[in-house]
Amino acid sequence: MESTAASKPSPAKSECLLPRISQFKIALCQLLVTTDKDINLDRARNMLEEAANKGAKLLVLPEMWVCPYSHEHFTKCAEELDKEESSQAFHMLSKVASSRKITIVGGSIPERKNGRMYNTCCVFGPDGKLKAKHSKMHLFDYYEPGASFKESDSFTAGDTPTVVDTDVGRIGIGICHDIRFPELAMLYREKGADLIVYPGAFNMSTGKMLWELETKARAIDNQVFVAVCSPCRDSAGSYTIWGHSMIVAPSGETKGRTEHEENIVIADVDYAENRLQRELFPKLNQHMEDLFKFLDTEQLKFANYAKSCSAS
Amino acid sequence: MESTAASKPSPAKSECLLPRISQFKIALCQLLVTTDKDINLDRARNMLEEAANKGAKLLVLPEMWVCPYSHEHFTKCAEELDKEESSQAFHMLSKVASSRKITIVGGSIPERKNGRMYNTCCVFGPDGKLKAKHSKMHLFDYYEPGASFKESDSFTAGDTPTVVDTDVGRIGIGICHDIRFPELAMLYREKGADLIVYPGAFNMSTGKMLWELETKARAIDNQVFVAVCSPCRDSAGSYTIWGHSMIVAPSGETKGRTEHEENIVIADVDYAENRLQRELFPKLNQHMEDLFKFLDTEQLKFANYAKSCSAS
Repeated sequence: MESTAASKPSPAKSECLLPRISQFKIALCQLLVTTDKDINLDRARNMLEEAANKGAKLLVLPEMWVCPYSHEHFTKCAEELDKEESSQAFHMLSKVASSRKITIVGGSIPERKNGRMYNTCCVFGPDGKLKAKHSKMHLFDYYEPGASFKESDSFTAGDTPTVVDTDVGRIGIGICHDIRFPELAMLYREKGADLIVYPGAFNMSTGKMLWELETKARAIDNQVFVAVCSPCRDSAGSYTIWGHSMIVAPSGETKGRTEHEENIVIADVDYAENRLQRELFPKLNQHMEDLFKFLDTEQLKFANYAKSCSAS
Repeated sequence: MESTAASKPSPAKSECLLPRISQFKIALCQLLVTTDKDINLDRARNMLEEAANKGAKLLVLPEMWVCPYSHEHFTKCAEELDKEESSQAFHMLSKVASSRKITIVGGSIPERKNGRMYNTCCVFGPDGKLKAKHSKMHLFDYYEPGASFKESDSFTAGDTPTVVDTDVGRIGIGICHDIRFPELAMLYREKGADLIVYPGAFNMSTGKMLWELETKARAIDNQVFVAVCSPCRDSAGSYTIWGHSMIVAPSGETKGRTEHEENIVIADVDYAENRLQRELFPKLNQHMEDLFKFLDTEQLKFANYAKSCSAS
């Protein structure tokens, strides 16, 4: 299992944990990514500051915002996140989060760990502390003679779903291709997520066909908010990116989106919409667990945690 | 459990059963439904004959094609499907299937059984025999002060998923609101379905927001063909229907669709596209069963059936 800096037990389905801000502004930072890591760090910081100035309380960066999408750049820009002092990205995100008192879902960067590389997202709270770390679980391996793309040549897949309690709700994290696996989003819903965030970087063909569709399907099917955040299209490198960062309400309504250029999407989130949708269409009452059961194999751990919460 | 006329064990995941036609034409009959059951039976027969004349080997009717969508009409038009001799719909479908040597997924009609009513789909083979019966499992109950809609006031929910081996592939059956439950489609994929067919009748608001989205999501996420077949919009009754019958390939490509008027959608199905999609994007290899397991509680029964197949 991936260890995380936030080593407390994952949150239980029971909603006994935090007082939350349930209405807030989210910002999806659709960054231009260059071949120069220092420039990317500067541009990301500036965009986060701009989003905070606009009143956003939850800021999201895209997948691989420190470097273009290629093995050569991953290797050159990778950081050791367990050694905070040596990670430029860790420091920048932590500092912006604490100075602006906001929550950041820090997109993803290449993480070097135990001789392997992971595609990893860090989540920071308003105190600047790391709250959770998620490594992409489903790597994008595409097989076609002459046109294959194997992300698993560069990265090792993470093996741990990530749900994190923040000041702005319980958030499930996935990275890009993770969105194509409905069972991950269903697990997050089971664990009481209010919002699922997927930093991603779909290409032009999967982007056109699947990006909006999968985002809306995860929101509607699980009756949660879903946000996807991509780099902008004219980023450096050979991989041409779809863009179109967006956030969708549990009804399927698009709350905010942009096209393919560099931009910040600012949108209002109100978790009362989750509750309303579940009252209008009480889908969860209709699950037929005697016929097909969705089994969370970590459930015993979570059950024990919930028990300790309800006893307190 | 609902008993079915086709009482053999449901097919196993193992693909050891039938030689199949894997390339064929499907026809989705988007019928006009009137308040007169005899007229509806005539119109349906004529449309099925027309579709067969156009070379379709699999014919699909919409949800509730014998009567408008209201409790009063359900009660008046319900049939006892276990007493074949008294069911006009059963006879008509069986006769067209055998005379034209085609497979029919017979939309749905109100079924009266043991003092209850079910929203039931019958599947007939080219010999005219009933191959499977599916009763809608997830009834559409919508709660809003002054605008509630409770299908469960009229019907009892079925409690059995239905996968049926036909001359034109292994087909999973759902009815309308069943499509909003991804776990049912995932179960059908687990059981080796090539195609999932949902006769449906979404209304104008859920139709616009969800009909195409859910159809495509089920196809893409499960890498199978998915077909949805609705009555046309100007059908009788107070319930205004979205229409837009369509069929989607496992890539998400729309193979055939229509707008809201009466029409037959004819499209080519080629199950080689399922195999190709699974080779390009080998999603099923990436399922993480040690973390979140989708448990088919009937699996022991199916496992035993598969064992008997592989031993033969």
